[in-house]
Amino acid sequence: MRLPLRSSRIFRSLLCLSQTTTPQSRGLSGAAMRLVQFHRHGDGGIRVGVEQGEGLGVVDLKAFDPSMPSTMRELLELGDKGLECAQRALASGQCVLERPDIRLLSPVLAPEKVVCVGMNYRDHCLEQNAPIPKEPIIFSKFPSAITGPYDDITLPPESQEVDWEVELAFVIGRRGKHIKEEDALSYVAGFTVANDVSARDWQMKRNGKQWLLGKTFDSFCPLGPALVTTDAVNDPHNLGIRCLVNGDTVQSSNTDQMIFKTAALVAWVSKFVTLSPGDVFLTGTPPGVGVFRTPPVFLKKGDVVECQIDQLGSIVNRVV
Amino acid sequence: MRLPLRSSRIFRSLLCLSQTTTPQSRGLSGAAMRLVQFHRHGDGGIRVGVEQGEGLGVVDLKAFDPSMPSTMRELLELGDKGLECAQRALASGQCVLERPDIRLLSPVLAPEKVVCVGMNYRDHCLEQNAPIPKEPIIFSKFPSAITGPYDDITLPPESQEVDWEVELAFVIGRRGKHIKEEDALSYVAGFTVANDVSARDWQMKRNGKQWLLGKTFDSFCPLGPALVTTDAVNDPHNLGIRCLVNGDTVQSSNTDQMIFKTAALVAWVSKFVTLSPGDVFLTGTPPGVGVFRTPPVFLKKGDVVECQIDQLGSIVNRVV
Repeated sequence: MRLPLRSSRIFRSLLCLSQTTTPQSRGLSGAAMRLVQFHRHGDGGIRVGVEQGEGLGVVDLKAFDPSMPSTMRELLELGDKGLECAQRALASGQCVLERPDIRLLSPVLAPEKVVCVGMNYRDHCLEQNAPIPKEPIIFSKFPSAITGPYDDITLPPESQEVDWEVELAFVIGRRGKHIKEEDALSYVAGFTVANDVSARDWQMKRNGKQWLLGKTFDSFCPLGPALVTTDAVNDPHNLGIRCLVNGDTVQSSNTDQMIFKTAALVAWVSKFVTLSPGDVFLTGTPPGVGVFRTPPVFLKKGDVVECQIDQLGSIVNRVV
Repeated sequence: MRLPLRSSRIFRSLLCLSQTTTPQSRGLSGAAMRLVQFHRHGDGGIRVGVEQGEGLGVVDLKAFDPSMPSTMRELLELGDKGLECAQRALASGQCVLERPDIRLLSPVLAPEKVVCVGMNYRDHCLEQNAPIPKEPIIFSKFPSAITGPYDDITLPPESQEVDWEVELAFVIGRRGKHIKEEDALSYVAGFTVANDVSARDWQMKRNGKQWLLGKTFDSFCPLGPALVTTDAVNDPHNLGIRCLVNGDTVQSSNTDQMIFKTAALVAWVSKFVTLSPGDVFLTGTPPGVGVFRTPPVFLKKGDVVECQIDQLGSIVNRVV
């Protein structure tokens, strides 16, 4: 199990108030960053940071500028102002924490919504002999399901059929309703990796076939490691996407298989609800889930599940 | 249309800091109150208050004690300390705002969860020739659907089949997981009235038969008028419950028809997820919804929907 402790940068300052760089005028369109949330060991508070690179040191945003908020959701609510400050913090090279001194959390906690999409990969539909949907199929998890990129997935005694689902996730950056598809990407702050952990017995056979309960057990939404801003991703719909269980590749596809892509999903869901900064979308899973194997395979205690997406990173969660 | 402007109490003080009553030692078990959230006209901030009686003056909690929070969710997170302060505020007779000077909001905004229960009235199952469920059927709305007790329901152009559903709602008062049924009521802060507005076309015929989208359009969860604390309700499962459309009674039943009652629902849902202060449960609707009428009847612009539950009050929402 590879742990994301590759940093060898020097820890510069715990309390780091000076900012000498010039404020930049460019907006969201130039903000290529890997934003994270983290705890400092020995300090339980949530902080927002900017990675110096995947798995490298993390600039503590509030140490750089004490007027900045402590959570990603609040940072996103600030709009360009927050992201510009994060860029200045990254450019300053100051206030850097080494990876052994922090623990990454999910890049978003307590969003108003976790919007999920079912049956959204062509190859996943073929796997189960299901027709290609003509409209997105939208369901949800409660925000309480979200857990960190390296935290444990707790196997509930209520289910015997807990399965993996690697998914491309994206996070809303500004408030909107009835968003046009051509404007939709400007409402997306960035992308990250999710595991849409699913109790198939509850999803498919119980609860009146409403999927919610099987999808929303505590710890059933590992998310991270970073919110990679939209401009830091070349093409979110041409990324290798993989899931490994105990090192064996069980899912391997490409996000070009997505039926409804990011902009279409933003436009669709915003017909129904007002989207808010921090809202998380999980965009569906490729083939290779355990339930459609012969015989079916489900997660058991001690398993290690790694979900990887090119350019975004990987999350590694042990099943307990 | 009756508006809740029955107060003739004198508006005593806008800024009211003195507290002369003695702190009380009793906990949640003695806290019989009607808690509300409101705006003061001309001041957009959310405040928490205590009604002096249904439709009467409202004690402004933060004016009484500036250390108290401004939202119900934060008040509930304080536990007994917050409710005791609310009781002292009510007993003081100070810091009372007259009803014409305020606008009631939903008693809870931005909960982590809106948990909904389907098919939970015996008489509603009979109405649609459906079997009595052996387990609760749980679905959800996004918190963005919540609207105030006298606010408008916005008819979305995407649906031609918007229906009413009066429901008993309850609100979680403290954090818990795997709660035993015999302990469950101690996790409930109180009860209120909800309208589980439902777009039947989206609920029943589209979105892969996942109910979420049809249930979660903006404004599809009117809630209020007050969070009536558990000890202020004689028996939440023996209350008359009614829905009136343009003054005509369309639903009229009793909460004694509920299949899974409050304690059973808390125990059931907490098998899956950690419950948190402010989480809202909608407990299902009695017969008389529009979709099962012959011919079906749906809401149209200009309709006024009133949902009433004995001891709790009523919410009145115009369809626009």
